[in-house]
Amino acid sequence: MRGEWVIRVDGEVKARTDDTINPNMPTGEIEVFAREIEVLSAAKELPLPVFGELDYPEDIRLKYRFLDLRRDSLHKNIMSRTKIIAAMRRRMTDVGFTEFSTPILTASSPEGARDFLVPSRIHPGKFYALPQAPQQYKQLIMMSGFDRYFQIAPCFRDEDPRADRLPGEFYQLDIEMSFVEQNDVLSTMEPVLRGVFEEFADGKPVTQEFPRITYDDAMRKYGSDKPDLRNPIEMQAVTEHFAGSGFKVFANMIANDPKVEVWAIPAKTGGSRAFCDRMNSWAQSEGQPGLGYIFWREEGILPGAVVIGQAPEGKFPSQSEIDMDAKKQGLYSDKVVAVGPDFEGAGPIAKNIGPERTEAIRQKLGLSSGDAAFFVAGDPKKFVSFAGAARTRAGEELNLVDRDQFKLCWIIDFPFFEWLEDEKKIDFAHNPFSMPQGGMEALENQDPLTIKAFQYDMVCNGFEIASGGIRNHLPETMVKAFEAVGHSREAVEERFGALYRAFQYGAPPHGGMAAGIDRIVMLLVGAKNLREITMFPMNQQAHDLLMNAPSDVSQAQLRDLNIRLNPVKKEL
Amino acid sequence: MRGEWVIRVDGEVKARTDDTINPNMPTGEIEVFAREIEVLSAAKELPLPVFGELDYPEDIRLKYRFLDLRRDSLHKNIMSRTKIIAAMRRRMTDVGFTEFSTPILTASSPEGARDFLVPSRIHPGKFYALPQAPQQYKQLIMMSGFDRYFQIAPCFRDEDPRADRLPGEFYQLDIEMSFVEQNDVLSTMEPVLRGVFEEFADGKPVTQEFPRITYDDAMRKYGSDKPDLRNPIEMQAVTEHFAGSGFKVFANMIANDPKVEVWAIPAKTGGSRAFCDRMNSWAQSEGQPGLGYIFWREEGILPGAVVIGQAPEGKFPSQSEIDMDAKKQGLYSDKVVAVGPDFEGAGPIAKNIGPERTEAIRQKLGLSSGDAAFFVAGDPKKFVSFAGAARTRAGEELNLVDRDQFKLCWIIDFPFFEWLEDEKKIDFAHNPFSMPQGGMEALENQDPLTIKAFQYDMVCNGFEIASGGIRNHLPETMVKAFEAVGHSREAVEERFGALYRAFQYGAPPHGGMAAGIDRIVMLLVGAKNLREITMFPMNQQAHDLLMNAPSDVSQAQLRDLNIRLNPVKKEL
Repeated sequence: MRGEWVIRVDGEVKARTDDTINPNMPTGEIEVFAREIEVLSAAKELPLPVFGELDYPEDIRLKYRFLDLRRDSLHKNIMSRTKIIAAMRRRMTDVGFTEFSTPILTASSPEGARDFLVPSRIHPGKFYALPQAPQQYKQLIMMSGFDRYFQIAPCFRDEDPRADRLPGEFYQLDIEMSFVEQNDVLSTMEPVLRGVFEEFADGKPVTQEFPRITYDDAMRKYGSDKPDLRNPIEMQAVTEHFAGSGFKVFANMIANDPKVEVWAIPAKTGGSRAFCDRMNSWAQSEGQPGLGYIFWREEGILPGAVVIGQAPEGKFPSQSEIDMDAKKQGLYSDKVVAVGPDFEGAGPIAKNIGPERTEAIRQKLGLSSGDAAFFVAGDPKKFVSFAGAARTRAGEELNLVDRDQFKLCWIIDFPFFEWLEDEKKIDFAHNPFSMPQGGMEALENQDPLTIKAFQYDMVCNGFEIASGGIRNHLPETMVKAFEAVGHSREAVEERFGALYRAFQYGAPPHGGMAAGIDRIVMLLVGAKNLREITMFPMNQQAHDLLMNAPSDVSQAQLRDLNIRLNPVKKEL
Repeated sequence: MRGEWVIRVDGEVKARTDDTINPNMPTGEIEVFAREIEVLSAAKELPLPVFGELDYPEDIRLKYRFLDLRRDSLHKNIMSRTKIIAAMRRRMTDVGFTEFSTPILTASSPEGARDFLVPSRIHPGKFYALPQAPQQYKQLIMMSGFDRYFQIAPCFRDEDPRADRLPGEFYQLDIEMSFVEQNDVLSTMEPVLRGVFEEFADGKPVTQEFPRITYDDAMRKYGSDKPDLRNPIEMQAVTEHFAGSGFKVFANMIANDPKVEVWAIPAKTGGSRAFCDRMNSWAQSEGQPGLGYIFWREEGILPGAVVIGQAPEGKFPSQSEIDMDAKKQGLYSDKVVAVGPDFEGAGPIAKNIGPERTEAIRQKLGLSSGDAAFFVAGDPKKFVSFAGAARTRAGEELNLVDRDQFKLCWIIDFPFFEWLEDEKKIDFAHNPFSMPQGGMEALENQDPLTIKAFQYDMVCNGFEIASGGIRNHLPETMVKAFEAVGHSREAVEERFGALYRAFQYGAPPHGGMAAGIDRIVMLLVGAKNLREITMFPMNQQAHDLLMNAPSDVSQAQLRDLNIRLNPVKKEL
């Protein structure tokens, strides 16, 4: 008998003696005294090892997925996934929601990503589409008088291969509620998802009360609408400290354009020239001209000095370069004294703006000796994502991020519209079905780019894990919003016929959200790859190597469906 | 304000006084004393009434499904459906099964019904298919070391419109278990489904221990492999009583062909010439030459006579024609006496075969005066379905069927192969993945048409509600079975590559079943039409009138998918 054979053993199960118990084996407390053994199924030589967690080429793993799934870690991930989904169901039911399935063969949606299409045999030339999400159906369920819906919903998007999304299908916890305002959805769903995280966090801390951060604040503080709050760095605008200063690059930008701001990325413990230079090089590798910085040290103390004494009230020194050196030499004492309130700002920016402004910035950012700050200047819309990346990098490089926790928050008040620079027009920033804050009044009288939506995301550790909104249930407001982005009333009626029709016959105010199950499972089990939490995934090229899909079909099948192949010459 | 407007009322909820309580209204015990009312959404004139359960054209109901679903009965059905599915989930979990989702974009299956196809954009000319059932995946899950799987599984078959199946998608409770034999599956699933029935039967009796009836017995006794056991009629073969008899039609058939049998359909209380003639006419309307019968009455008593006295021990008369006439005249007494052990058989068959054979048949069938029996003769394979229909009709016409109950049973031992008369070859009778009883040995040495499969159905009130089998997990036996119906080893490897491959690497014996959720819900809520238990159904022509699917798609979409329409001239 060899590995992976399936056998039947008849015999007696006996407890091991205390000295032969093996606590490292699941069956280490017993022995089976076999009377008879039958081979139920032999195994050929294995194409990949099942025991041990050796890395193995992914194509082999996917082709022999039934062997791959016998491996401990994958098996455990899949079991966790199914338990997480069961917990979602249980918790949704506990708070009064009912699960309804929505159709999978439905209409092609003219908005959003690319649909998978299904040719209709009975209606030649017409096509069903697989749902990108049950958005319209769940709103129709509210119109139908079922007040609290949820579904573990399969969704389908025909997207080009992306590292963070499996080709084809994915699952979301989809919910919708009637007679609610934004706070009702948030305060209903927060305990549900907090509960799921706590249940599967394996002891890691989970945020108890999710901060509600406006989109604008999130962009300003974290440079992202999906901030990783495990990173303690919060950015601040320090424009006034550069306006009219001796650092002419920034000062001139500010003078020439009222949109220009200077943002500071404070970096505690980052106060060494070596670190600051590394950040600067990284910024250049990202296509930036550089990354200006200041770092602070105690004035007048020379490298290598050891300072021992009592800290004055409220003043504990950071671990400056000097302290670090002292520590390395074993000369460290925890009664190190900060030399005094005077810090020396180092680096070219500090020299240019002078000690007064440098000190004002230090105080504003709450930094101390041994810390640094980085500066980006320009139109925040243009630099914000780089600033966010710099915040992330500084936090990670300086080990400021405590990874073993789940930090959750809500991002609220997303903009309703956005400006498309290429097309010189406004469009919906996110979900066109959301209610604009201020309603019809705002659509009629407000600068569209200042209108916020009742739209919110839930974010965990830097990933958007859920997204939702209060819906626009008023047909006239819906038409007005679509007109603002250039669609006529007729287009709305045609494109969203069912929903538009439903809103005419008594529509309860309603809202909801959808949480990405795959992402939540990945976070909870600590998987880096979607294929590690999916039982039968396709590969990155949308090919199912186990079942060999997609595959050729017969001419008869094509004829039945009233389609022909349209051969396209491929480049050689 | 008018019907179906959505309003918000601020005010005080007060208990009604005892004399104003209305127990017929869900809110009949309270009043709201309104302070303020806000209209949240008005309603235009309704295209169909929401209150009251008026019949209404189905196309209007489907187009305005969101109004239709507000109706009490449909709303209640949909809520029952979701609760039944939740109960299935709970009960499956309780007996140690784990829910896994299987892919919806998968490979075209070369066996079975027609697939829905999905053109691949990334792989030009290739197609995914939507699964007809997760059969191969669930077996692969067993190969992957997950021992007890279930799923509320969406399934897709591109079938022509049928009254008993919605076009497109349907759901099944899909299960599979490793290391089991047939009895393990049956005794695991019987309590689960009995429990679901009891939970939603609304007090109607549910079979406690499901009889296990072999396929052969079911065909012989009920003329069907999905017998309605609420009908107490059991057929019996009475060939020997006609062999060599004076009823030459039957006697000659029996003499000329050893396959010929005569089956009797006993019909208690059916003993009137009027009823027997009605059955005969019905048989002719079904394309039969007629339906021979005998009915019994007490010998020698003249119509209209009234018989009063004490019944001899163990003999209570049926309500014969005579009794009925007496009853109508008010002359009935419950101390009617059966005149004696001699019954007169009436009708032409009785005359032809004579009193002795007639009496022998009566005794064999356990009939009495006032009862009848119908006879079909020929090759049972050919007449069995008509015999089954006659059994059903007799039971219904005579009100022998107590409808308010759920009678469940297992049908076991289905034939593994069947003879295709048109193609003059054998084929799989049902599931090619089932294990033939007797295994390789039987395939090698037995007449294939006598081999049974480890395959079983669960039947309720005349409907197949579940079907399953023990699978053939031995690759050589699988190849042998496919060879018997004309497929080569290579064809098996190509068509069922994943499964065939998996069986090479240690395959646990396994089996399972799938229960039809739509049918079970229909039985439990008493719906006659699938659209009464489905939230957003298509119409019978596979058209979703609410969302308008299927619909046209753009040329750009078709180009993306590398297909063209193939216009087919329709008949004018």
